[in-house]
Amino acid sequence: MTAGSSSTPDSPGHPHPRHIRLTSHSGGFGALPIVWGAETARERGPVVGTTTSRAHRNVIGTHSGSYSVYRALAVAAGALKREHKADLTNTAPTNTIGPYPQWSDPAKIVSIDPWGAEVAREYEAELAAGYDIRPTLAVTQAHVMLPEVIEALQKGRLKADGQLLTANGAAMVTKVAVEPVWYLPGVAKRFGCTEAELRRVLFEETGGMYPELVTRSDLEVFLPPIGGQTVYIFGNPRDLADPNVELTARVHDECNGSDVFGSDICTCRPYLTHAIEECIAAAQPKDKGGRGGVGLVAYSRKEGRALGEVTKFLVYNARKRQVGGDTADQYFARTECVAGVQDMRFQELMPDVLHWLGIRKIHRLVSMSNMKYDAITGSGIEVGERINIPDELIPADARVEMDAKMAAGYFTPGAVPDADELKKAKGRALK
Amino acid sequence: MTAGSSSTPDSPGHPHPRHIRLTSHSGGFGALPIVWGAETARERGPVVGTTTSRAHRNVIGTHSGSYSVYRALAVAAGALKREHKADLTNTAPTNTIGPYPQWSDPAKIVSIDPWGAEVAREYEAELAAGYDIRPTLAVTQAHVMLPEVIEALQKGRLKADGQLLTANGAAMVTKVAVEPVWYLPGVAKRFGCTEAELRRVLFEETGGMYPELVTRSDLEVFLPPIGGQTVYIFGNPRDLADPNVELTARVHDECNGSDVFGSDICTCRPYLTHAIEECIAAAQPKDKGGRGGVGLVAYSRKEGRALGEVTKFLVYNARKRQVGGDTADQYFARTECVAGVQDMRFQELMPDVLHWLGIRKIHRLVSMSNMKYDAITGSGIEVGERINIPDELIPADARVEMDAKMAAGYFTPGAVPDADELKKAKGRALK
Repeated sequence: MTAGSSSTPDSPGHPHPRHIRLTSHSGGFGALPIVWGAETARERGPVVGTTTSRAHRNVIGTHSGSYSVYRALAVAAGALKREHKADLTNTAPTNTIGPYPQWSDPAKIVSIDPWGAEVAREYEAELAAGYDIRPTLAVTQAHVMLPEVIEALQKGRLKADGQLLTANGAAMVTKVAVEPVWYLPGVAKRFGCTEAELRRVLFEETGGMYPELVTRSDLEVFLPPIGGQTVYIFGNPRDLADPNVELTARVHDECNGSDVFGSDICTCRPYLTHAIEECIAAAQPKDKGGRGGVGLVAYSRKEGRALGEVTKFLVYNARKRQVGGDTADQYFARTECVAGVQDMRFQELMPDVLHWLGIRKIHRLVSMSNMKYDAITGSGIEVGERINIPDELIPADARVEMDAKMAAGYFTPGAVPDADELKKAKGRALK
Repeated sequence: MTAGSSSTPDSPGHPHPRHIRLTSHSGGFGALPIVWGAETARERGPVVGTTTSRAHRNVIGTHSGSYSVYRALAVAAGALKREHKADLTNTAPTNTIGPYPQWSDPAKIVSIDPWGAEVAREYEAELAAGYDIRPTLAVTQAHVMLPEVIEALQKGRLKADGQLLTANGAAMVTKVAVEPVWYLPGVAKRFGCTEAELRRVLFEETGGMYPELVTRSDLEVFLPPIGGQTVYIFGNPRDLADPNVELTARVHDECNGSDVFGSDICTCRPYLTHAIEECIAAAQPKDKGGRGGVGLVAYSRKEGRALGEVTKFLVYNARKRQVGGDTADQYFARTECVAGVQDMRFQELMPDVLHWLGIRKIHRLVSMSNMKYDAITGSGIEVGERINIPDELIPADARVEMDAKMAAGYFTPGAVPDADELKKAKGRALK
C-alpha cells in the first residue's frame, strides 16, 4: 500500500501504528504490511521475501537477486536445508548510514530498502517471532589496491598519507552491497507509465516471470532477479550527507571486458580508475595535507548497457564489419539494429543509492554522461563540476565511442565533434 | 523431449528429420521441437525464447539472463517496441567454434546451447519464416591491456612477440559471451535429483518464478535469469580441441571486489592476472620464440560463491568480529552460519563450456580448487599439472582464505596446514 494512503487508525496501512503488528489480517499470523516511505523502520515494516513460510511473504520474488536460482540449486543438490535461516551474529554494518530525511520521501527512493542494512536491529521482535527477515544491504570495510593507484603514487600524482592511502598503495574504503527492492508504484512513476502497465510488461517481456506481478496487486514490492550495486566510499560515510564537504563521485556501470580484462574498445576501466584516483585525492585528510573531502564510486551491474554481454559482442562485430568500418557516426545505429534501443541502462533508478547515502550535492561528478547527469540533477541533487576522462587515458580504439557520445550530448570541455569529424576516428577492423 | 527417445519416423522427436519442420503439431504453425544432443543444428532445432509470439516459444524463460528485466523496463518506458527483432547482419562469430563430438553427447553439455552462436546460419529458414531466434553465444575478437601484463613485460617475465603480445602490453584474444541454456533433465542428473524435484525446487525456492517449471513438463529447456560466462582465448581457438597442443586454462568465478577494485581479502584478481600471464606465455607463437600453445580463461558470473555480494559482506563482518578474530579454522564456518552452505557455486555445470570448446586435455590448470578439478576430471577431461598462485601474489589479509582452502582440500604443492597452523594466520580486524 502507498505510504500515507490509509486513514483509519490501526488499519494495516496506517503509517503510525503504536504497537508491533505481527499480522496484516486480524486473527492470522501472516504477512506484515509494508508502508513504503514511512518515517521509521518500525512504521515501514520489514521486507519479507522468505521461501520457507509463504504466509509471511509480503513481496513478489525473493532475496539475492539472480542468485536465488543458485540457492534453489543448493536445495536441489541436498546441500542446503530449505528451512535455513541466516544467523546474523556479528554481521551488522561497520558504519551507520542514515537515517536521512530522503528515506521517508517515497518519491526519492523507490528501488532500495533504506532500512535493509539494519534488519537485525530494527526488526528484532519480528525475527524473534519467527519471521525470516534478511538484509538487502550490507556495509563493510576493506583495503583496495589497484595497480593504477600504485602507478599514481610512483609518478607522484598521489602521495601516501598513511591513513586513507598507504605507501604501498592500499586505500581504505567503506563498501556497501545493495540488492534491488522495487516499490512498483514508485518505479512506474519514474518510467512514466501506470503501475498496471509496468506489472504487465515485467511479466510478459520476461516470458512470464512471477505471475504475482499481475495477479497480486496487493503486493507492491518486487525483489527482481537482477544484479545490484556496490558502493565504495573513500573517507567518512557521514560526510556524504554534508553539502559543505567536497564530494567527488562517479556512478559507473559494469563493463566486465574493460573493468576486469582491460579491453581497449572502451574507456570503462580507465575512467573508473581515474575516478578512484580523484576520490582518493579528494578524501585524503586535511591534517596530512589532503583536501579533507569524501569520495564515492557507485558500481551498477548493468553489463553492456544492460543489454547483456551476448548482445554487446554481436554489436562489436556489426560495428567492425559494417561498410566504411567502425566510425562514430554509426556507433549508436549498430546497437539499435541489434538491440532495438541504444541503451537499456535507464538511469531513472540510479540516483536512489545517492539519496540513500543522504547526498544533496556532488561537487565533482566524474562522468561525462548526460543521461547520468540529467538523472542525478533531475532527482534534486546539485552537481558542481563535471570531470572528463583525461585524453591520455583513452585507448586508441575507444576514440570511436568517445566521439559518438560527445556528439550525442555527453559532456565535453572541448569542441563537440560535427558530422564530418564523426567519420574520422576509425576503430580497428577485425582480422 | 530427450535426444533419441522417439522412434517412429517423422514424429516430432525423431532425431533425423528429412525436411525443415516448422511445426510440432500437424496443422499448426507453432513451437519447434528441441531434440537436445542431436547431431546437427537442424536436427536439434532452434531455441526460441521470444516474447513476441508466445505460440513459437519452446522454452521456459527468455533471453539475456537477468537482463530480460531491463528489456521489460525498456518496453515499459516506451523506448523499445515489443515486436523488435534483432537485425543480425554482420554479427556472426569472428571465429568458428566446433562443431565437436561433445556437442551431440547430451550428457556432456546440459547448460549451453552449442549451436547458439550460429543461429543466423543454421536457422536461416526458420528466421525467414518469422521465428524470432536469438543467439545465446557471441564470438568476437579484442585487444586486452592489463597493468599486470605491462608490469610482466617491464620486469622481463613476458616478452613481446608483436603478434599475440605487443610491446605496449596489448594481448590479442578471441572472446565468447555465453548465456545459460539449461536442459532440465540433464541439469537434474548433474545434481543427483529427479527432473521433477529440480523443477519444483527452482520454482519454490525462487519465490515462485516461472510456474511453467512445474506446469509445463513438455518444455524441457529453461533460460534462467542469471549471469552467464565469458571465455577469453589466447591463441587459435581451434587448438583448444587438440590434446597435442599445450593448453593452459583457468576457470575463474567472479569476485567484483577483487577483480575490479583490488580488495586485499582474497586472491581473486592476483590469481586471475597470473593466469592471464601464464596463458599469454603459453600461447606465444613458436616462430617468435614462444611455446606455441593455447590459453583459456573462462569467467563465470558467480559473485561471492554465487551467494551474492550482500551475503559476502555479511560474512566478512562476521569473520572479522568473531571471538579470536579472523582465522582460517573458522573461515568456512562463518559462511555456513550466514548462508547455510559454504559455497553455492556448484561446479557441476562449469565443464560444459570446456566441452563446447572441444577440450579433452588441460595441460596446465591454473587453479588450486579441488571442486573445479574434480568437476573437470569427472566430466572426462584430462588434467596435467596444477598451477598454484605464487606466494608473492597473496595479499597478507588473504592468507586466512588460502590456509582454510588448502586444509579443506585445495591443491597445494607444499604442506597442508594442520589444526594448529590454521589458528595462526589472522586477518586484519575491523577498525
